[in-house]
Amino acid sequence: MRQNNLLATTLREAPAEAETINHQLLLRAGYIRQLAAGIYTYLPLGRRVLRKIENIVREEMDVAGAQEMLMPSMQPAELWRESERYEVYGKELMKLRDRHEREFVLGPTHEEVITSLIRGEISSYRKLPVTVYQIQTKFRDERRPRSGLMRGREFLMKDAYSFDTGWEGLDKTYARMYKAYQRIFERCGLSYRAVQADAGAIGGEGETHEFMALSSIGEDTIAVCPACDYSANLEQAEVYSGEEDMLRKTDSLPAAVKFHTPGIRTIAQLEQELQIAPEQVIKTLIYQGGGQTFAVLVRGDHEVNEVKVRNFIGASEIALADARAVQAAAGVENGYVGPVGLSLPVLVDRAVAAMTSGTTGAGEKDYHFSGVVPGRDFILSQVGDFRTAQEGEHCPVCGKGVLHFHQGIEIGHIFKLGTKYSDKLGASFLDATGRSKPMIMGCYGIGISRLLAAVAEQNNDEQGLIWPMALAPYKVHILQLSVKDEVQRSTAEALYKQLIELGIETLLDDRDERAGVKFKDSSLIGIPVAIVVGKDAGEHKVEYMDRRLGSKEVMDIAEALSRVASGQI
Amino acid sequence: MRQNNLLATTLREAPAEAETINHQLLLRAGYIRQLAAGIYTYLPLGRRVLRKIENIVREEMDVAGAQEMLMPSMQPAELWRESERYEVYGKELMKLRDRHEREFVLGPTHEEVITSLIRGEISSYRKLPVTVYQIQTKFRDERRPRSGLMRGREFLMKDAYSFDTGWEGLDKTYARMYKAYQRIFERCGLSYRAVQADAGAIGGEGETHEFMALSSIGEDTIAVCPACDYSANLEQAEVYSGEEDMLRKTDSLPAAVKFHTPGIRTIAQLEQELQIAPEQVIKTLIYQGGGQTFAVLVRGDHEVNEVKVRNFIGASEIALADARAVQAAAGVENGYVGPVGLSLPVLVDRAVAAMTSGTTGAGEKDYHFSGVVPGRDFILSQVGDFRTAQEGEHCPVCGKGVLHFHQGIEIGHIFKLGTKYSDKLGASFLDATGRSKPMIMGCYGIGISRLLAAVAEQNNDEQGLIWPMALAPYKVHILQLSVKDEVQRSTAEALYKQLIELGIETLLDDRDERAGVKFKDSSLIGIPVAIVVGKDAGEHKVEYMDRRLGSKEVMDIAEALSRVASGQI
Repeated sequence: MRQNNLLATTLREAPAEAETINHQLLLRAGYIRQLAAGIYTYLPLGRRVLRKIENIVREEMDVAGAQEMLMPSMQPAELWRESERYEVYGKELMKLRDRHEREFVLGPTHEEVITSLIRGEISSYRKLPVTVYQIQTKFRDERRPRSGLMRGREFLMKDAYSFDTGWEGLDKTYARMYKAYQRIFERCGLSYRAVQADAGAIGGEGETHEFMALSSIGEDTIAVCPACDYSANLEQAEVYSGEEDMLRKTDSLPAAVKFHTPGIRTIAQLEQELQIAPEQVIKTLIYQGGGQTFAVLVRGDHEVNEVKVRNFIGASEIALADARAVQAAAGVENGYVGPVGLSLPVLVDRAVAAMTSGTTGAGEKDYHFSGVVPGRDFILSQVGDFRTAQEGEHCPVCGKGVLHFHQGIEIGHIFKLGTKYSDKLGASFLDATGRSKPMIMGCYGIGISRLLAAVAEQNNDEQGLIWPMALAPYKVHILQLSVKDEVQRSTAEALYKQLIELGIETLLDDRDERAGVKFKDSSLIGIPVAIVVGKDAGEHKVEYMDRRLGSKEVMDIAEALSRVASGQI
Repeated sequence: MRQNNLLATTLREAPAEAETINHQLLLRAGYIRQLAAGIYTYLPLGRRVLRKIENIVREEMDVAGAQEMLMPSMQPAELWRESERYEVYGKELMKLRDRHEREFVLGPTHEEVITSLIRGEISSYRKLPVTVYQIQTKFRDERRPRSGLMRGREFLMKDAYSFDTGWEGLDKTYARMYKAYQRIFERCGLSYRAVQADAGAIGGEGETHEFMALSSIGEDTIAVCPACDYSANLEQAEVYSGEEDMLRKTDSLPAAVKFHTPGIRTIAQLEQELQIAPEQVIKTLIYQGGGQTFAVLVRGDHEVNEVKVRNFIGASEIALADARAVQAAAGVENGYVGPVGLSLPVLVDRAVAAMTSGTTGAGEKDYHFSGVVPGRDFILSQVGDFRTAQEGEHCPVCGKGVLHFHQGIEIGHIFKLGTKYSDKLGASFLDATGRSKPMIMGCYGIGISRLLAAVAEQNNDEQGLIWPMALAPYKVHILQLSVKDEVQRSTAEALYKQLIELGIETLLDDRDERAGVKFKDSSLIGIPVAIVVGKDAGEHKVEYMDRRLGSKEVMDIAEALSRVASGQI
């Protein structure tokens, strides 16, 4: 490709709203442009990288035995009502009506469509297992689209769905997809981790893993144990229970004491003004969700993990009660709520249950209790792991290692769905004995466009992008420094022609621009190898630059050519 | 691929709503499934054919110098207001609102998006010309989706857009795209014709051609001259004017005579009851459009061509006035309307202007005039070509050949848009002298999914589909007649393995089905070559079937292998 014709205007500065490196660089280097919030056009350079990712994904899906198909974006709303997700999905679901006022959604995912298709196509165990996939545009009306391609409202996904006759079959399919995911992310040159995760709105009964590209801009925190290789999304990470499950004697403890605490409503105030350590405080939070109002107790130095709470009570959404609801439910304002005498269901975190005694709100304005004993002063009927793990705590699996935290970008997610959708949508089969059973499903997603952004986020320096060879829009960038110099021109043209004939994707900078501009743009665009045809062209010399190594070497054209032709670049 | 695992259930009968051959066969052979009216899922076989078409289109677009990009489906409604198409496009435009109540459309085409993008990227003649394309899902809320993929509401398109500095540049770009289209349709094995066409809602000032796959189910009629190769969409086909433009003497003709015609309101009645030949009748039709009400006069044996009328008056839509509007405008009901004394603008078809005299409504209930002389009894201020050409008429270009009619499926459409969008959306550039000028645009579409349907419609017999090799989902179909016969099994497996190693896309029918079922399904699916491994497998013999030739030949396995490996299949 000749750069003079390439639709790829480079920008000196990224628009102010671009806060992350990948967003800034993909805009500045001419890979993408925003059309509306969270909605992007891929310019030719961006489209090329996208296609390379698509092809890697396609190859590995095919190797894993998945069959490519293509499902529609427009999905009848009835299907989503049948699966009971029409309401659950909430405002993220894009909805529209056709000219006959029939309701449709724009698919954010395709469980409904594929399950209803398969129920019509397959009725016997003999046609199972089957795994299908598609690479397709998805729509999700994010409340806050951000970071360019990272969290968009229209984006490219690979989604796959598997149908097995039983859980053993699903285990095998799941393992095969897990491995395919590893190969895909390795081929894309990503630094990533697979972590245990929460199933979220997709749901399902079984195991689920997220694949996380490690990055400081990641919205997810992942907890990793260096000793046993345990890794989990912090939403999901269990808390080490080794020290907490002790038995306590409570008989001989003194009764709780109420004391006057006007204006003291926070853990920080208790610590600063009354010298009570946060780990001695029982924090009482009122939540609503799943049609009920309930309290969650955690230690003052701990945080409620809402995902754990949500999963425990089996609600799709939970939220902190607002001031009015707190007053109504607990009879007192926030800051003085406490478990003693509270007439609400109470979820008690294990660390609270393990406390000998603690300080907590007295359920009366301007008063706290000290010396409150869990199990004596309030009931411990629902004790569990309701808090977020903390960095430096012991690993919940091996108990030896100490958890480290990383930030991660979710680039893939695989789920064992089980029968969640096959039950609701009636996808069943006859087994070898003629009995009808629901199919056992799995689903497997990769954010293709987000993956592009994650690779860009991981591969750059202050000058611009640095593509891994497998995803680079072009493998070689020829910089012809002066378009007016006939020797340079003919040398660059000959080299370009040779590379094209060798089938090496090459971009020739034939623009009438200053050398400085060409060097800058080349670094910004981030093609792995640049061959500079400059003033030494007459002596058949070029400069060979490796963007990844940051190296520069003057060499004979023949050597540069053989180096790129060898395929070892 | 092993057929036992392939998601491709064949059906004995197509659903009743499938009326066309392609729709029936694509459903029966397991290529597509309907999700909603005009909305289809591509099963693995269908996806494979689709990808082959995509790749041919991509290769030819790249050769033609077009750059691939990818634009969003969700487009801000403001952009469509800016181009003044938001209302014009009417109900076919799918509309939705996001969570913030901002209006979007789902792109049926991308002139607005690309023009607004280019205005921001290119400001100098030095970056022009540029041609970009994308292969992308489009949405169009068809009033009557039909014929499967032929006229869908969600479909796959290749759309390309070119930007030149002047009309000469556009002419060159247009010619290059025209040639690329010819190569694409030839490679897809289509019987087609390029015809002059009408620009429709896309609009534009210049030339436009449709590429029509010839087929009896085509919704378009095309007029072709065998003598000079003139071909045009009937909407657009001009009428030969050689015999009509004569001068007439009207002075000596007798005055028009009013006569009583109670209950006679149609051309057919005039002919049957009063023996007046239709070519002696002047038909007067009242239309509305472009903000006005007007009459169109054609001969009784001719039909008004509404496209020609619409283009003449410069309206985006016109329609016949309803009974009430006719009464209001002409003072009489339909059937007695006539041009004499009519106080409306009147468009007179050339054939009417050339009549010596004729019979027509008298503008009074139950009366007609005979002997009405055009130009004497009513004014000939707006004479033009307002009728539809008829088969057997002389060619409007060479005047010698006689027009033949064919039915065609529109599979491609190319337009010289000129400045229609660049003016409205402000896409201008500075020329070499520093003057600002609007870019001169072209746009170029191919219906990828419709092309698939057109190829299926042209290539089949009573047993099923017959794919051209370039588009076939697999090139070779191995039929292992008995899965219980160990010799057949090992022979078929060995052959399958060899073909896969040779890189030949092969489908192995390893299903536990009767031989008859396998033969039937193979013919239905339509893979070009089938190799039957049956009872002669022990003697290393197979049957080699060519679906296209309908031939069968028993031969050594080695010969069958070398035949498919030679690449000459």
